[in-house]
Amino acid sequence: MSRLLDLGPLLNPRSIAIIGATPDATRVGGRPLAFLRRYGFEGTIYPVNPRYQEIGELPCYPDVASLPETPEMAIVALPAAAVVEVIGDCNRRGVPAATIYTSGFSEIGAEGKALEAELRAAAGEMVICGPNCQGVANFHDRVVSNWTSALGRDDMVAGPIGFVSQSGLFGGLIAAKCIERGLGLGYLVSSGNEVVLDFADVLAHMAADPRIEVVAGYLEGVRDGRKLEAAAEVARANDKPIVLLKVGRVEESARAAASHTGSMTGAYEVYRAAFRQWGIIEVDDIEELVDVTEVFARRAPRPKGDRVGILTNSGGIGVFCADKVREAGLRLAEFEPRTVAAITEHLPTFGAALNPVDVTLQTLTDPDAVGRHIEHMMRDDGVDAVVTFFGVQWLKIDEVVAMLDRARWVADKPLVVSWGQGDPEAPRRLRELGIPAYDDPLKAIKAVRALRALALNQSRPAIDVAPVDSAEAAAAAVLLRERLVEGPLDEAGAKAVLEAAGLAVARRGLATSEAAATELILGLRRDPTFGPVLLLGTGGVFVETLGDAVLGLLPLDRGQAVAMVQALRSYPMLQRARGRAEADIEAVVEALLKLAALALAAPEIQELDINPLIVRAAGHGAVAADALIRTEANREQRE
Amino acid sequence: MSRLLDLGPLLNPRSIAIIGATPDATRVGGRPLAFLRRYGFEGTIYPVNPRYQEIGELPCYPDVASLPETPEMAIVALPAAAVVEVIGDCNRRGVPAATIYTSGFSEIGAEGKALEAELRAAAGEMVICGPNCQGVANFHDRVVSNWTSALGRDDMVAGPIGFVSQSGLFGGLIAAKCIERGLGLGYLVSSGNEVVLDFADVLAHMAADPRIEVVAGYLEGVRDGRKLEAAAEVARANDKPIVLLKVGRVEESARAAASHTGSMTGAYEVYRAAFRQWGIIEVDDIEELVDVTEVFARRAPRPKGDRVGILTNSGGIGVFCADKVREAGLRLAEFEPRTVAAITEHLPTFGAALNPVDVTLQTLTDPDAVGRHIEHMMRDDGVDAVVTFFGVQWLKIDEVVAMLDRARWVADKPLVVSWGQGDPEAPRRLRELGIPAYDDPLKAIKAVRALRALALNQSRPAIDVAPVDSAEAAAAAVLLRERLVEGPLDEAGAKAVLEAAGLAVARRGLATSEAAATELILGLRRDPTFGPVLLLGTGGVFVETLGDAVLGLLPLDRGQAVAMVQALRSYPMLQRARGRAEADIEAVVEALLKLAALALAAPEIQELDINPLIVRAAGHGAVAADALIRTEANREQRE
Repeated sequence: MSRLLDLGPLLNPRSIAIIGATPDATRVGGRPLAFLRRYGFEGTIYPVNPRYQEIGELPCYPDVASLPETPEMAIVALPAAAVVEVIGDCNRRGVPAATIYTSGFSEIGAEGKALEAELRAAAGEMVICGPNCQGVANFHDRVVSNWTSALGRDDMVAGPIGFVSQSGLFGGLIAAKCIERGLGLGYLVSSGNEVVLDFADVLAHMAADPRIEVVAGYLEGVRDGRKLEAAAEVARANDKPIVLLKVGRVEESARAAASHTGSMTGAYEVYRAAFRQWGIIEVDDIEELVDVTEVFARRAPRPKGDRVGILTNSGGIGVFCADKVREAGLRLAEFEPRTVAAITEHLPTFGAALNPVDVTLQTLTDPDAVGRHIEHMMRDDGVDAVVTFFGVQWLKIDEVVAMLDRARWVADKPLVVSWGQGDPEAPRRLRELGIPAYDDPLKAIKAVRALRALALNQSRPAIDVAPVDSAEAAAAAVLLRERLVEGPLDEAGAKAVLEAAGLAVARRGLATSEAAATELILGLRRDPTFGPVLLLGTGGVFVETLGDAVLGLLPLDRGQAVAMVQALRSYPMLQRARGRAEADIEAVVEALLKLAALALAAPEIQELDINPLIVRAAGHGAVAADALIRTEANREQRE
Repeated sequence: MSRLLDLGPLLNPRSIAIIGATPDATRVGGRPLAFLRRYGFEGTIYPVNPRYQEIGELPCYPDVASLPETPEMAIVALPAAAVVEVIGDCNRRGVPAATIYTSGFSEIGAEGKALEAELRAAAGEMVICGPNCQGVANFHDRVVSNWTSALGRDDMVAGPIGFVSQSGLFGGLIAAKCIERGLGLGYLVSSGNEVVLDFADVLAHMAADPRIEVVAGYLEGVRDGRKLEAAAEVARANDKPIVLLKVGRVEESARAAASHTGSMTGAYEVYRAAFRQWGIIEVDDIEELVDVTEVFARRAPRPKGDRVGILTNSGGIGVFCADKVREAGLRLAEFEPRTVAAITEHLPTFGAALNPVDVTLQTLTDPDAVGRHIEHMMRDDGVDAVVTFFGVQWLKIDEVVAMLDRARWVADKPLVVSWGQGDPEAPRRLRELGIPAYDDPLKAIKAVRALRALALNQSRPAIDVAPVDSAEAAAAAVLLRERLVEGPLDEAGAKAVLEAAGLAVARRGLATSEAAATELILGLRRDPTFGPVLLLGTGGVFVETLGDAVLGLLPLDRGQAVAMVQALRSYPMLQRARGRAEADIEAVVEALLKLAALALAAPEIQELDINPLIVRAAGHGAVAADALIRTEANREQRE
C-alpha cells in the first residue's frame, strides 16, 4: 500500500508564517491572521511581506530567510509567479509544511502544469496543501487558516466532524450547513490541486484523531487508489465512518472536474466498487452528505439489523416512510404481539398500532403516551431502529422533546426524529440533546441506512488476501510470456494461459445446454487509478445492454468474491432457476480468485475476457467457453 | 370513460350549513366558522346544533329540516353514529353537496365498512367529500372549510396551486411549505375515504379552473383507473401539469394505506405505466413534490429540448450539477463558439467558460458581468434551459437579483436559480419576482426535468385508439369461446386464438437461432384498478430476474406501443445487436396492438403469456413460440 503522509506540522503547527500577509482582512492574504486570532491560535505568527514593517501589531518580515525561527507551517498567499521561489526558500530553511492558496497551476492547462511540476520539485520533502485551495482548519487546536467566508462568524464551535474537499466553496457550504444545524467541525481542509498532500492523507489524519467521530468529503478523483484504500483501513481500525460525495460520475462532468482542480478521475463504476469493498459510505447529493454526517456526529447507536419501526402523527407519512424504508434496502419491522397490545391500549380510536404506528392527534393531546409507544418499539426485539415523524406540531413542544429524550435511552438502538413544518424550536432543542433531527422523514430513513451500512462494514471479517495457489498463477504468467514471444495471443493461447492458472476451459462449440442457469462473463481491466479490476457480469448477448455487472478491486479475498456473485441481479437465478438445479456458485468464486491471482502475477495483461463462462450444475464446475487476452503489444496491433 | 363529478356546489357553494357547529374554534366543529370568516366567505353560513341558539352571532338551528333555505353545501362534524341519519336529512332536503370530517368508517375495519355502505346509500345523488377527511378549501372564492391548523395564519394568499390529498395532515404540510415559499394555494382538498367524490374528480375540477397553473396531489390509490385517465385528459386539454406523489409502492406499505383511509391500491408498476402513458408527472418524495409544483406555479417557460446550461460560482458544484443533469435524463448543453468567446472575454482568469461555467468570485466583484454570461447562455441556440447556483453569497444581493431578473427575459427558456447558504433575502426576492429559486442545485435540476416532461407530454400526438383490425380480434374472441366450451385452453388452443387475432405463431421447437437478437415476452394481465394491462419484457430465462419489462394500459395506440418497445433496456440490442441485423421492431409493435385488440374483444381472458416471442430480422416478423391463455374457468382449475 502507498504511504500516507504525516500531516502533524500542517494541521497542528506551533508557529505559522503568512507569506504575502496584508493588513486588509477582506483579502485572501489578510484573512489567515484574522481567522487565526478569531479562533484563538496560541502559537507564534510571523507575517512576511517586504512592504510592511508591522501587520496587526506583529512585526512583519521581508522574507523567509529573515524570520527569527523556522516556522512549522507557511501559508502562501502570493501570485502564482512568485510561489515556486518562496517554496524553495521554505524548503531550504527547513519549513516542514505549507499551505498554498494561489491559483494558476495545473487547473489552467499546459503552462500551469509546468509551473506545478516546478513547484513539486522545489517542495522537496515538504508537506504541502494546495495550490489552488482555501487552506486548512483544525478547530480543536485553534489552527484556522482556511479563508472561506463561511468561517467568519462567532457561533462556530469545535466538534466531531472532519471534512475534506477538493472544491473550496463546497467546503465552505458544508461548514455553513453544519453550523446552521448546531454541528461542530473538527477539521475543514480544502485540498486543491494536491501537488503533495492528497485527499486520502487528510481522510486518514482526521480518522485517527480521537476527537473526530465522522470523516466526510467532497471528491472529484484520486490519483492513487491504493492511498484511498489505506485511509479506509485507518478509518476502519479507528471505528470511524467515511462519508463521501463523489462527483465527475459521467464523462462530461469528469472533464469539467479536470479543468477545475486538474484532477483526473477514473471510471465512476470502479470508484463505486472501491467504496463498497472498502466500506466507504457514498452519498448521492449535498443534503444527504450533511444528513448522514449529522447522524454519525450525534453518535447514534448502530442498528444490529435492518428492521425499522416507524411512528408518525400522519397515516400518510407513515405509508410514505414504509415505501422509503424498502427503497433504502431496509425492512419494515414486524412488532411482537405484546408491543402491539401495549400500544393499542393507549392509542386514540383512529390510530394504528401496527408498524407504521399512526398516533393521529395524540402528540397534541398526550405526548407522554406517544413517548411510551416509542419506548415499546425501542424494547421490541424485532425492531433495530426507530424513525419518528411529527408534522405541523406547534403545541406541547417541551413535552414532545422530553418524551423523545427519555425514549432513546431505553435500548441501545438508534432513534431518529423527523419534523415537518412545526415549531423550529423543537428540532433545535433535540439537536442540542444530541438527538438526530431532520426536516424530512426521508432524510431520517437515509440516516438509518447509513448507520446500518457502517455497522455491516465494521462487522465484516478481516481480509484474507492469499486464498489461492499463487504457484499456478506464476506458471500461467511464465506461459503467457513464452507465448507472447511468438506474437499476440489467439483464443487457443488465451485458453492455455487460463488453464495453466487453474481455470477450466473448453474447446469451441461447447453446448450451452450444459449451462445450469445462465452464462456469465468474467473480465479483467486495468484502471489508471485503482489498478487491476475484475468484472463479473450476466453474460451472453445481454451483458452490454442489461448492465448486470459487478466490479471487484484487487486484492480480492474469498468473502469479497462471494459478495461479487451475490451482488449480481441474476444471483437468484444462479441459486435455483426455473426448476433447474442450483448452479456451481463455488466454481464461479474459484474462477474469480484464480483470475485475481493471475492478474497480480501477470501485470502485462491489459484486458482479459472470458465470455461466456458456462456455469454448470453445482459440483460440475464452470468452464471458459471462449477467451481473449490483450497485452500492450497486441492491443496496439489490433486497434 | 368513467364520469367525472361536478364539484361546483361542493367547492364554490353560496351557502353552507355547519352541522355539529360549536363556538370553540379550537375544536373541529368550531374551526369551519372561524376559517370561513377569516378567509372572507361571502355567502350565508348556517350553524346547526340543537344545543345552541346562536354561534358567533349567527342564529343556530336545531337540525337540517329547520334551516330557512336549502344550503348548497353541508359540513358534517358529528360522531360517526350520527352521520348517516344527518346525510339522509340533507339528501331529503335537496342539499347537493356535503363535506364529512368524521372518522370511524371503512378505515377501522368491517364495522366501519358497513357504516360506510349505509352512508353511500343515504347520500343518493349528493356529492360528498370524505368521510375521514380534513375538508375542502377554495381560496380564490374564499370558501375555506378545511380544518388543518396550517391554514390558521394570516400570510396565506390565494394562488395558482391546486392540491388534493388522501392524507389530511399531508395536505396541511404541503400548505405550510407553500406558504413558507411565498406560493399561493388555490385549492386544498382532503378527500379522505372517498365514499362518493374521488381523487380524480378533484384533479379534474382544479385543472379546469383557469386560475390554477398546476394540480398536485398525494395519492395512496384510486378505485377506478379510468377516472384518473379522464382527469389527466382534462388537465392535458387545459394545458396544466398534474404532479403526484404516489405512496403504497410496496406490499407492506399498501397494507398500511388500506388501514389508513380504507383505500385499495393496485400494483405500483401499473400506476407507473398509467402515469407515463397519461402524462402525469410522478415525484419521488415530499420535497420534490413541492419543488416541482413551485416551478410550474412560477409559470416558468417550457424547454424545447433537453440541453441544460449551468453557471455556478463553484467549480465543484458545477461538476456536481453536470452529473445530476445526466442522471435526470437531460443533457449538458454544448455552447456555440461565440457564446464561449463572449463569456471568456469577461471572465476572471481562474473561471471556466465551457459548460458548466464557473465564475468563481465574479458574483462578488461584478454581478452585472455574471448576468451577461447568463444572457449569452440564454440566447445560445444549443441551450434549452439554464440552471444557476450561487453559494455562500452575502454581498451585492440587489445586483444579483436584478441581473437574474434581466437575464430571464432575453429568451423564452427557463432560468432556474439555486442558492446555497447565502443571504436568505435573495431567494425570497427572486420568488417575489416569480423566478423559481431553490436552496439546493439538485432541486433546480429536478425542476427543469419536470418542465421538460410537461413539454414532451403536451407535444405528443393525440391518441388514435383504433389502429388495428378489430374484426380479427372479434373472430379470435369467438374462437376462444368455442374452445372454452370444450374445457381450459392448452398451448395449441392458445396459439389458435392468437393466430386468429393476427399474430404469427409457431409449432413447438422453433429454433431460437432464428431470433435476430433476443427473445421477448409478451403478456396480458387484468388489474383491478386499471383493467387490462400489456406487458412487454426481455425474455428467456432472464425476464423475472432482470426485470426489463414495460407495462402498457389499454387503449393503446401505435405511438404508445412504439414507446413501450423503446423503453426496454434491451432496445439498443433490438436495433442492432452484436453485428446481427436489426430486429423486426415493427412486428413487435404490431403484436402489441393485436394483443391489445384481443384483450378488449375477449374480456374473459384473465392472463395471457407469449414466452418467448421470437423476433426475427427486420421484415421477417415476430413469432409466438409458446403461449398460454388463462380464463376464469381454467385459472381455478389449475391453481
